[in-house]
Amino acid sequence: MVSKNIAPSGSVASKRYELLTLGDELLLGLTANGHLTFIGAQLGQRGVLLQRNVTLTDEADAIAEQFRESWARADVVITTGGLGPTCDDRTREAVAGVLGQTLVFEPEIAKGIEAFFSSRGRIMPENNLKQAYRFERGEVLANANGTAPGLWVEQDGKVLIMLPGPPNELQPMLTEQVVPRLAQRGLLLKREAYVQLRTAGIGESALEVKLQPVFNRYGEALSIAFCAHQGQVDLRLSSPSGALSFGQLDAIAAECVVLLGEDFMCYGGDSQAKVVGDLLRAQGCTLAVAETATGGLLSSEFTGVCGATKFFAGGCVCYSNESKMQLLDVPECILEQHGGVSAENAVAMAVGAAERLGADYALAITGFAGPCGGTNENPVGTMYLALHSPHGIWSKKLHYPGPRATVNRRAVTAALDWLRRELVRTQSGVTTGAQAGGQA
Amino acid sequence: MVSKNIAPSGSVASKRYELLTLGDELLLGLTANGHLTFIGAQLGQRGVLLQRNVTLTDEADAIAEQFRESWARADVVITTGGLGPTCDDRTREAVAGVLGQTLVFEPEIAKGIEAFFSSRGRIMPENNLKQAYRFERGEVLANANGTAPGLWVEQDGKVLIMLPGPPNELQPMLTEQVVPRLAQRGLLLKREAYVQLRTAGIGESALEVKLQPVFNRYGEALSIAFCAHQGQVDLRLSSPSGALSFGQLDAIAAECVVLLGEDFMCYGGDSQAKVVGDLLRAQGCTLAVAETATGGLLSSEFTGVCGATKFFAGGCVCYSNESKMQLLDVPECILEQHGGVSAENAVAMAVGAAERLGADYALAITGFAGPCGGTNENPVGTMYLALHSPHGIWSKKLHYPGPRATVNRRAVTAALDWLRRELVRTQSGVTTGAQAGGQA
Repeated sequence: MVSKNIAPSGSVASKRYELLTLGDELLLGLTANGHLTFIGAQLGQRGVLLQRNVTLTDEADAIAEQFRESWARADVVITTGGLGPTCDDRTREAVAGVLGQTLVFEPEIAKGIEAFFSSRGRIMPENNLKQAYRFERGEVLANANGTAPGLWVEQDGKVLIMLPGPPNELQPMLTEQVVPRLAQRGLLLKREAYVQLRTAGIGESALEVKLQPVFNRYGEALSIAFCAHQGQVDLRLSSPSGALSFGQLDAIAAECVVLLGEDFMCYGGDSQAKVVGDLLRAQGCTLAVAETATGGLLSSEFTGVCGATKFFAGGCVCYSNESKMQLLDVPECILEQHGGVSAENAVAMAVGAAERLGADYALAITGFAGPCGGTNENPVGTMYLALHSPHGIWSKKLHYPGPRATVNRRAVTAALDWLRRELVRTQSGVTTGAQAGGQA
Repeated sequence: MVSKNIAPSGSVASKRYELLTLGDELLLGLTANGHLTFIGAQLGQRGVLLQRNVTLTDEADAIAEQFRESWARADVVITTGGLGPTCDDRTREAVAGVLGQTLVFEPEIAKGIEAFFSSRGRIMPENNLKQAYRFERGEVLANANGTAPGLWVEQDGKVLIMLPGPPNELQPMLTEQVVPRLAQRGLLLKREAYVQLRTAGIGESALEVKLQPVFNRYGEALSIAFCAHQGQVDLRLSSPSGALSFGQLDAIAAECVVLLGEDFMCYGGDSQAKVVGDLLRAQGCTLAVAETATGGLLSSEFTGVCGATKFFAGGCVCYSNESKMQLLDVPECILEQHGGVSAENAVAMAVGAAERLGADYALAITGFAGPCGGTNENPVGTMYLALHSPHGIWSKKLHYPGPRATVNRRAVTAALDWLRRELVRTQSGVTTGAQAGGQA
């Protein structure tokens, strides 16, 4: 459950937005409804809570009926999909009927579509001309990444926005053209409605307790929303009543950062790998990783970070004992005496990775993610982590309930958070060592 | 666009289902609407195309209004979420008002909730008793994984099903309790409506051409739907009119498999890694992988395969030249003469991985995934693959447009498909070598 007051802010909060997402592929579960996620988040950032999202089949009658209802209720209606060139895309016609408008052929759009095809060395099929129509009293939103332009209508004191279905066409059209236009007309905030802090390694309730002194000071004027996901909790500060200015929100956020200490990860929504990478680069250091059960998940966290070659030396995935010895020089006696799932092996893997790859830091994860494997001493869900740094080597044993994917994900999150805290301490000259740390 | 005729099958096709998903977190884009994807797919498999999904805020009035509409239109209404213990979960009351029913306290549910808490060593908070109410004329769906039971009502010749929001509670409740009950009442098919074949390395239109002789033979009686995703195309065969029996559909699928040859990957929806793993195990062989830009993505494909230790020897992620030499014995002269992004290096990485890890097969991927990097000869999007097998070593150069994540994903898909084809050929005694293959 999210706080009710996460989104609305000031006068735009009272605006009613509805989203119609069209396409059988959504209703058949073949494609996730990413449009809702993307558009909902964009509106939420600008102070509006989307009131309703309706997904329905591509039948003209159902579309017309639903659009009539939504148009009667809402200030802004956004539709996605149904603007394709095939004969079953009859969305434009259905909507035009409800608005009492006709569709007119727009030679400029046709030229744009032809140019799109010829830039790719292809000839425009005749049926694409269907996409060259706009509402007689409406505008066109240029589409740099596809053939169907977006459509914009202002009528009856309301706004209708029709967007093409492919995400790579819809998303830039929304952020670059639609959001600024809506903000201009006072239908969205001109900047983000909240300040977001990302924390890691601390639970939602502990976070609340820690920040209570700040929250108490501002009372009703300040609205706080928590959103927990995979070992991280995002904290959003806003002032729905407008009682606090954005400058004040920024100052309150800074107070929170001080109270949070190491639990603070970043402003906004950067990934753990990005934050860790920035810290490593700032210190001119490199990282190596070694994994068993997580099988490359830890390593692949860094593929999303551009320029990772600057700090990420590499990684090894070692399921078999042979591979641990061959790739990471893990001594055979350790594997014989303690087994592959042990603190001793985790440490040997981290040391081996750091030495083989010539890295300053190394993280190792080994464990039983399940559903197979596990012993009395180390049941399924047991994960050993090891951290090698220029200041020492540590290991810790963790246990996570849940299915394989969850266990692996949580171990990766815990490992990255451990390293992040160590890097933060090194940066600030604290030398308490890596033993302390956030919750597992 | 999906074929219209993918889902409906026989008399259940005319049944109208609507899904109401409740929760501000969906409308704010904080959580993807996975319920739509899951429930839509379950219904689609059993012959029903979900007619409409409405996501709305947790306001009792809006819920009542929307439920009234959906209940009037549909044969079956499913709701998700809004059954929590907090005071803002007023969904039950809103729905009861529309149905003209009252809610009654059910001591059996209360006992179950108490047992749930005590099995976890916790005491039940008082407000959880709110979850112990059911409709006076309705049933309860047991929840083994949480506190809120599901609710089932049959009234006015229609069915209402209310499911709890957490996916780990909702999903087993749907498949184990709801789907069988609906099938019993003739509201869903008793088995899957279609036979699914998964293909890899062949495009949708090429697939259609290849299978046209089969399709022509059955005409209107056979419905074919294609669903493309990341280098794979799923093909679903069904007979909406019921003109073909399930036995006939199975036989037609077998004909398609013969025509498809190597392009056929599996029946159903297994992953590439699973299929490759099964082939390796059947041949008693092992696999090692080596990666640069894909940074562990190839390796982590195997974490989803239980028992991967049986065939997956391990992998290396080598961004730096040093790591390629240290971990995989890539000769320095190759890196100096040809660079890290070259066929020569890909081959050396594959050979090194196979030798170091003592594996029969090895896959290597190196390239520029972008947005940084790239040269005139090897622009961003260039990926070199190498395959080492007991029968030889090959490399190929591919080029993919698009952002980093897409380039990486497509390279991983291509590498796994290449290996799969090689394993299929080995299995069937064909020794044409790995040079041939599907589209990049």
